[in-house]
Amino acid sequence: MFVSEALGLSRHASKTLEEKNILREAFIPHPFFSDIIEALRFERKFGEIEEGTVVAKTINGVRIVRGFPKIRRALTLYPSIRKHFEREVAVEEKMNGYNVRIARMGKNLYAFTRRGYICPYTTERARNLIGMDFFRDFPDHVLCCEAVGEESPFVPKRIYGIEGLDFFVFDIRKIGTNEPVSVDRKIQMCEEYGLNHVPLLGIYGTREAHEAVREHIRKLGRDGREGVVLKDPEMKIEPLKYTTSETNAGDLRYAFRYFNDYGKDFMFSRIIREGFQSFEFEESQEEFRERCLRLGRAILEPMIESIKEVRSGEWVSEKIRLKFHSIEVMELFLRHLRKMGIDYRVKSVSKENGGVVLHFERIMRSTTDKIRSHLEGQPW
Amino acid sequence: MFVSEALGLSRHASKTLEEKNILREAFIPHPFFSDIIEALRFERKFGEIEEGTVVAKTINGVRIVRGFPKIRRALTLYPSIRKHFEREVAVEEKMNGYNVRIARMGKNLYAFTRRGYICPYTTERARNLIGMDFFRDFPDHVLCCEAVGEESPFVPKRIYGIEGLDFFVFDIRKIGTNEPVSVDRKIQMCEEYGLNHVPLLGIYGTREAHEAVREHIRKLGRDGREGVVLKDPEMKIEPLKYTTSETNAGDLRYAFRYFNDYGKDFMFSRIIREGFQSFEFEESQEEFRERCLRLGRAILEPMIESIKEVRSGEWVSEKIRLKFHSIEVMELFLRHLRKMGIDYRVKSVSKENGGVVLHFERIMRSTTDKIRSHLEGQPW
Repeated sequence: MFVSEALGLSRHASKTLEEKNILREAFIPHPFFSDIIEALRFERKFGEIEEGTVVAKTINGVRIVRGFPKIRRALTLYPSIRKHFEREVAVEEKMNGYNVRIARMGKNLYAFTRRGYICPYTTERARNLIGMDFFRDFPDHVLCCEAVGEESPFVPKRIYGIEGLDFFVFDIRKIGTNEPVSVDRKIQMCEEYGLNHVPLLGIYGTREAHEAVREHIRKLGRDGREGVVLKDPEMKIEPLKYTTSETNAGDLRYAFRYFNDYGKDFMFSRIIREGFQSFEFEESQEEFRERCLRLGRAILEPMIESIKEVRSGEWVSEKIRLKFHSIEVMELFLRHLRKMGIDYRVKSVSKENGGVVLHFERIMRSTTDKIRSHLEGQPW
Repeated sequence: MFVSEALGLSRHASKTLEEKNILREAFIPHPFFSDIIEALRFERKFGEIEEGTVVAKTINGVRIVRGFPKIRRALTLYPSIRKHFEREVAVEEKMNGYNVRIARMGKNLYAFTRRGYICPYTTERARNLIGMDFFRDFPDHVLCCEAVGEESPFVPKRIYGIEGLDFFVFDIRKIGTNEPVSVDRKIQMCEEYGLNHVPLLGIYGTREAHEAVREHIRKLGRDGREGVVLKDPEMKIEPLKYTTSETNAGDLRYAFRYFNDYGKDFMFSRIIREGFQSFEFEESQEEFRERCLRLGRAILEPMIESIKEVRSGEWVSEKIRLKFHSIEVMELFLRHLRKMGIDYRVKSVSKENGGVVLHFERIMRSTTDKIRSHLEGQPW
């Protein structure tokens, strides 16, 4: 099998990989993806190989796009930063969108979502927005980006003032090995090729960083931003993340709107974060009251919204708008959603400025069914 | 095996029961339990046999104390009550303590907790408070009670003004079959033998019951009470339960104080109830704000309390005070806790009014360890 060969797996490991049924198709064959002959993604972690890793047989040979490594979360700023990092820590803004790896295969760019799907919508956007300049000079590097904006199939957000979708580079890594370049070098490379990168908020000594980060978090929270990623400037130590209370509440708002389609772990972990942050931030009584109210509202308001929706005979759904350059890519994207197991209903397709605008609803069937049964009098 | 014989299981069922490893010892042999030669409890449901069922070989033959049937929860009052019941529904107060079945074995009373343990503390209390009168006339009935008060090893509550522990009968059932007597008959039997029973709040036609129950719930909530159990007056239909917002918050307060020792399902289900109740109760903006704040506080305050406890070098623990008549029973009870897998530390034992007062702490090791690791800088 070309995957085992590409990864240099032993015969034994190769057999295990097959038995565990970890490999899945990463894309739907289509002329839009003409550089790729075959591509498989890792549905779960396998030894050293991250979940979301893709091994692709392309017209120019086999390429391995390693999965983006999971970033662990600091529950406390002090002493976590001091213990985890060495002399200094770089503080970058963590933007709220979806994680995308962009790599060159054959003559074109391809965009890989976190789980290793090659997404037609994101790929089309990447080809238009990122261009080939960077990849002509660095064909063996991967741009790890946050895709943010209102036209997001996964995390539509208005906060960045981006009507469409844009990419912000947070890591540049070597294809195949996942080896990152330093924070400095990443920024330099982005600037040279005119690529957006996530803001670097500062570099601090690890003894005082927790105080600086706390201030950044307070300010980011007021602006409705997500949080920070803490990095070793040389990228030799794994990064840590830390989020604002407003984002924890926002995540809960989303999760409780679709409460039966979401994992309880997702909700639980966000709630626990709030406790640790409140403990560490030495809040006034009034600030603490605000945090409690924010948490309670974030849980109850979206649930009640969903219950009301079902009572009026509707499905609980997420409404999404996307713009495509080509109708073929739009059709491919809809097939892609189905492949991902997403239940959707197209509301409208219309032409606009030489592009196609798609409005669709992602149907949350489990939440809808659960609410409906209780509204009909079914006990828990 | 005497269990299979007592339940009349086929040879096949008997073998399955053994293979599934469902039977566990229900008690620690001791002179205090001298009427019982052997007793096994069902750790899980097995066909028709409820979890917590106990089969006991006593000096007078084998007795089967069936597990207390799980009561399902109404998420909405309307239309649940109307759909579930027939002409009328009896509304009883659901008191907040621990579920105990009291039955006669040989010459004495025995108290069985929900999971089928014969609890030394509860048994001693039952022998003193309930007495044998009822059981002389009804040796084959089981009193299903809520054990409430401040001296509770499991759910210490001050709300009922009971300094010690008392028993409130909510069901009277036939031993062996679990067949209940009607609501009327239960009250009559309790009054005849001077037994406390849970308050009957009213009997309503199923068309208007939801409004009456809503008013009861509002009032019970203001008084800090738990909720109601809705019953078919003839007990031919299974009951339903419904709780106040204050109790949902109280449960969450308890669960988040010990957040890593508690199941996420426990927290999740209580949160979901709040959403449905808020939806159904047509609240004012101010009432809704209060509910959100109550929920947020119930989650964050106890978590922060626990974090602070660990920071000052303590264990997260629940402090409990119990009174025993005999020191032998107290020692038996401590062995019983260990058997149940409860981690505790005795703080003091002192004599008082001819009895023994035990202060102990139940140690929440998992929550303590989790908090400690994050306070030391361990990422999630």
